[in-house]
Amino acid sequence: MKIRFVTLFVMLLLSACATGAQTPSAPPAPRHNLMPVPASVRFNEGRMAVTKNFTVATRGFVDERLRSYINRVARRLERRTVMEFPRNPATDASTASLVVACQAAGKTVPALDEDEAYTLEVSERQAVLSARTVVGAMRGLETFLQLVDSDREGYFIPAVSIEDKPRFPWRGLLIDVGRHFHPVEVIKRNLDAMASVKLNVLHWHLTEDQGFRIESKKFPKLHGMGSDGDYYTQNQIREIVLYAQERGIRVVPEFDMPGHATSWLVGYPELGSAPGPYLIERQAGIFNPSLDPTREQVYKFLDTFLGEMAKLFPDAYMHIGGDENTGRQWRLNPTIQAFMQKKGIKDKHALQTYFNQRLLKILKKHGKTMMGWDEILQPDLPKDIVIQSWRGNKALTEAARQGYNGILSNGYYIDLAQSASMHYLVDPLPADTTLTATEAAHILGGEATMWSEWVTPETIDSRIWSRTAAIAERFWSPRTVRDVEDMYRRLAVVDVQLEELGLTHRKNQEMMLRRLAQGANVAALQTLISIVEPVEEYKRFKYHTQHTMLNPLTGLADAARPDSFAAGDFARLVDTLLADAPRFDANAYRIQNTLTLWRDSAIELQPMMDSIPGLHEARPLAKDLSEMATVGLEALSYLSKNIAPAPEWRAAKLAMLEETAKPKAALEFPVILNVRQLVVAACEAPRLKTMTQSAWREHVKQLATPPVPPTVK
Amino acid sequence: MKIRFVTLFVMLLLSACATGAQTPSAPPAPRHNLMPVPASVRFNEGRMAVTKNFTVATRGFVDERLRSYINRVARRLERRTVMEFPRNPATDASTASLVVACQAAGKTVPALDEDEAYTLEVSERQAVLSARTVVGAMRGLETFLQLVDSDREGYFIPAVSIEDKPRFPWRGLLIDVGRHFHPVEVIKRNLDAMASVKLNVLHWHLTEDQGFRIESKKFPKLHGMGSDGDYYTQNQIREIVLYAQERGIRVVPEFDMPGHATSWLVGYPELGSAPGPYLIERQAGIFNPSLDPTREQVYKFLDTFLGEMAKLFPDAYMHIGGDENTGRQWRLNPTIQAFMQKKGIKDKHALQTYFNQRLLKILKKHGKTMMGWDEILQPDLPKDIVIQSWRGNKALTEAARQGYNGILSNGYYIDLAQSASMHYLVDPLPADTTLTATEAAHILGGEATMWSEWVTPETIDSRIWSRTAAIAERFWSPRTVRDVEDMYRRLAVVDVQLEELGLTHRKNQEMMLRRLAQGANVAALQTLISIVEPVEEYKRFKYHTQHTMLNPLTGLADAARPDSFAAGDFARLVDTLLADAPRFDANAYRIQNTLTLWRDSAIELQPMMDSIPGLHEARPLAKDLSEMATVGLEALSYLSKNIAPAPEWRAAKLAMLEETAKPKAALEFPVILNVRQLVVAACEAPRLKTMTQSAWREHVKQLATPPVPPTVK
Repeated sequence: MKIRFVTLFVMLLLSACATGAQTPSAPPAPRHNLMPVPASVRFNEGRMAVTKNFTVATRGFVDERLRSYINRVARRLERRTVMEFPRNPATDASTASLVVACQAAGKTVPALDEDEAYTLEVSERQAVLSARTVVGAMRGLETFLQLVDSDREGYFIPAVSIEDKPRFPWRGLLIDVGRHFHPVEVIKRNLDAMASVKLNVLHWHLTEDQGFRIESKKFPKLHGMGSDGDYYTQNQIREIVLYAQERGIRVVPEFDMPGHATSWLVGYPELGSAPGPYLIERQAGIFNPSLDPTREQVYKFLDTFLGEMAKLFPDAYMHIGGDENTGRQWRLNPTIQAFMQKKGIKDKHALQTYFNQRLLKILKKHGKTMMGWDEILQPDLPKDIVIQSWRGNKALTEAARQGYNGILSNGYYIDLAQSASMHYLVDPLPADTTLTATEAAHILGGEATMWSEWVTPETIDSRIWSRTAAIAERFWSPRTVRDVEDMYRRLAVVDVQLEELGLTHRKNQEMMLRRLAQGANVAALQTLISIVEPVEEYKRFKYHTQHTMLNPLTGLADAARPDSFAAGDFARLVDTLLADAPRFDANAYRIQNTLTLWRDSAIELQPMMDSIPGLHEARPLAKDLSEMATVGLEALSYLSKNIAPAPEWRAAKLAMLEETAKPKAALEFPVILNVRQLVVAACEAPRLKTMTQSAWREHVKQLATPPVPPTVK
Repeated sequence: MKIRFVTLFVMLLLSACATGAQTPSAPPAPRHNLMPVPASVRFNEGRMAVTKNFTVATRGFVDERLRSYINRVARRLERRTVMEFPRNPATDASTASLVVACQAAGKTVPALDEDEAYTLEVSERQAVLSARTVVGAMRGLETFLQLVDSDREGYFIPAVSIEDKPRFPWRGLLIDVGRHFHPVEVIKRNLDAMASVKLNVLHWHLTEDQGFRIESKKFPKLHGMGSDGDYYTQNQIREIVLYAQERGIRVVPEFDMPGHATSWLVGYPELGSAPGPYLIERQAGIFNPSLDPTREQVYKFLDTFLGEMAKLFPDAYMHIGGDENTGRQWRLNPTIQAFMQKKGIKDKHALQTYFNQRLLKILKKHGKTMMGWDEILQPDLPKDIVIQSWRGNKALTEAARQGYNGILSNGYYIDLAQSASMHYLVDPLPADTTLTATEAAHILGGEATMWSEWVTPETIDSRIWSRTAAIAERFWSPRTVRDVEDMYRRLAVVDVQLEELGLTHRKNQEMMLRRLAQGANVAALQTLISIVEPVEEYKRFKYHTQHTMLNPLTGLADAARPDSFAAGDFARLVDTLLADAPRFDANAYRIQNTLTLWRDSAIELQPMMDSIPGLHEARPLAKDLSEMATVGLEALSYLSKNIAPAPEWRAAKLAMLEETAKPKAALEFPVILNVRQLVVAACEAPRLKTMTQSAWREHVKQLATPPVPPTVK
């Protein structure tokens, strides 16, 4: 009795609006909550109970790193299940709940060629995790934890055979601590989160125009004058590198040069290409201060400084930035111009290549391989450097064809507040790549980039997570894993589990609303914030033209999370309503309740928005919320009664929705798309032949009475 | 037209149940959100706007400590108001928004006799904060921040004249890190919270049977074998002492002995009164291990150890515990018995006095004054020691009469999950004290005690705050400030403001519910948890007989907060309903909506409680919630129609409420009292003559139809 309503509607709706829906390119994986999806998962009959007698034993190799990881996983499982497990490790592997069978330590320092593979066999009696290295075992332990499920009988793990290994060896997250400083605890909890979704590189963007964030004992004016006191001591750096190591995560430091270097020059103006003096930059943007590549003193400085840094960071790679050097200071400096003429250096790109060649020697001397952004790719650089592409697949493909290693960041700019699905479908090595297998091997993976113009320690987790878990899946899982709907289903689970690691992406939103409301009831505000999203890309600069790095960033646009889950839920309700008549009843009620809540929340917001200046900016949003909800309820009412609205209604309402679709206070309502679908459906449905189906009619008759017009004051 | 319903009802209700309501003993203070209430507050006409041009200037003495404090206060104000203030301090005091006029540094190390007084004059043009010391200025800055208000026009501070100084010089919070360890960040954020309500002593309970939490370089097996690795390094200790100093807070360390010392003996069994070996204690309770007071080796050890500790803690006082020594190990040890006989020491108390006399000499040698619990008060101790009374006012009064300094902790045991109002009304020096003024001066103040049998770093903030703010008011404000209703009104504001300091008392509750629900919607669970309270005093041990310090403490009783705000709100609604007929309409609707929400939440909880074992224990609570809400709705319906229920209804419903009043899962519903009030009111109201009042009749007629019986599966 299913009415094939969907195809007709799809045609109708596509004319009204682009839905942007993704078609899955592979059959959906069996239903589980694993993220990233393992290379191979085969569920079997049966389950292993997780009780208060849960024990872990190790077999083969074990060291303190593995023991601690197992201990942390057991504590997370205890906290989730509210059970206290026996604390001493089971000595008898034959009776342990989980056996971790590890063959060897693997790399003592996490490395690009680490073996991260593992297998996990869960039977009714026991789970056995096997790995060749400790890091492989860590990856498997996270999978084990994600398998834990529950029902009326208790907590359990389904019987399953998993064989797993990563698709790419370089799976990174860049955290920019230059524009906004993020203290040790922020980095630590994000390392825990990274490990939980099998990311393995922290790209630590340590220097920027707006701040020099690492202590240099050789040149103490770097952090002393370039950081407002917000920097990591060398002890803290060592602490974090060790913390990452214990989670199988490499730490690649970035010292951005020759541009993006204002903060270096506050204490050492003599390194700059213009005389100075320099002040810490407070604005966001691209700035002119640049190291002077023509002075020997600069290379001597860098040799000492990078030598000092090389000792702090055991990783083989060191990132020298190299991006967005404007060249203006070089152009205006006669000495630099004379130098170029003398050496036959034709332009700023060639001069930067000269600079990079000098840097390369310094890095090599200190045992490091160079890494940089697209711009560093110039002739004569050795093939072992790594290019990080902000420009995109095309630049990356070209580099790989030339034999350069590369990672993709274009498409993973999580600071742009875009959807997880958008990032998810970007592939460092897409199915249609023109690279040969040998060339393709140069594509090492990718990195999500948390640039921090707009993030504070209070909000950074909500900007990174949980969307980065979807990116992590792209880097780890087989290319064919591309089912967006299934990804979102699992992401909602991961979003909650991330809180177990101390992440604040959810709880700080609620705190921020309470702080804004100063004691008033925040229920209506929570409803509003749950369905708005910060404007995407760089649009926020339009709304905050006075933005500096000193802004408190505690407003509504900061409290809102990108890619609203609640908006996604609403979109699914509307999709189901319009696609599947037999489920119209329950869905329509849910939609009606949701729209009613929105409308009522807009009313409840009124006194709060009036009395709290920090919420004044919510006024146009509340108006939109009210209007949008009201028109949605009207459309639903027409649909429920199968009565066509007057022709002018459609045009008027769509025009109104056009207005509400315009962002306000740097926020927008993604659900307007779905309300528009309801309006169109209300107009078109009565004309459909399928509307004569009695089953559907009976359902819609049961729908509620038309909504009361809103009474927003 | 106010119907004097209240007096009649009060009589009726008093027969049905004891309400425990407090009568204010002083006229309420003018309505503001200050906590603690200053010694003198006089509001004037006008207000000072707080705009994005807000600046602070200093006059007189200023040091880095004051500058940093001002800076932090400005940042908190920025975050709350979503405004970016000019970052450079205003040099011209005449145009600054706030002038901080400080005369001198005060004590370099916070001390008992620090001058904490300040005055704050806010006019339309400017706020001027004057203090003799930096610490005084800190106290005033917190008052300034609490004065910030807002309305349609913007943020502002009302014109006001405040003269303020503390009633008691010793206003402390004890944090027990022995039973559960609480890392550096927990202590730091609680120091911030303490400063915000003008507490000035962190009593750091560093050693316990269950853990030795401080690094000793002299005796590394103390923390090495006695802490599971959970201890503060000496660098961290120095960091925290400095952090406290910067907030005008003294740090008094406690090394509990001779009892409560199991963890000492794990590494050094030779100090014990029985041969050992010893293991870290995992249970809660009072245990026998005790230092051996008869061995010279013990005093040599303590001399070295306390000497090492004395260097870490600059405060004049050192707490040696001294409580709950069972004496069993002494009794069973023939050498100790022989020693006592030889020295003429008659019992364990006398032996402990001997031990304390020896300790006293050691402390004196290292420049410290002794402090201990009631038990240390024995003849011949010098008068400068401080007695901390867990026994109560009587013991404290007796000590003061003997000339001993004392502080009160009995009545401030915040681990017992009692109400803020209970603690609030306990006074270290009650109005009816029999002490002379000279004797009374020995009562230095009091301390709230956060014993940590049941608290983890995840829940500790919710056990300390915001109730401790009410205790802080008791220690700071004049004795006559005792209006419980007004205290709760202000406490609700403080509860939100504490989050600005990073406190997790609210946000971790929501996280804990999400973790339990593992992705399911937690709305119904939030409703339940908001109106239950953990059982009080030591009753929780009855529900968790297997409790050890390794329990994850992530269940419902851990998520629930003591002294539910939501329950308080409901109690006020019912009070108002039964007291004030003209407001019956709006209140009754609110009560009806609340009860309906409770009833529906019980239904919504069903599938979640079934599928999640960690929530199985909620089943009887959900049943109670449903039954209680249903009977409340029935009572409301009778009341609204002014129809008397059948006589057996009252008895049946009160009997049922007796059952729901029994705690389940270590949780109870304080609102049952109010539902009982509704039941009694429904039975009694029709008999009242006042019911003929037509105004009241008209109102109740408008009330909703009787509730649908619940359909809990």
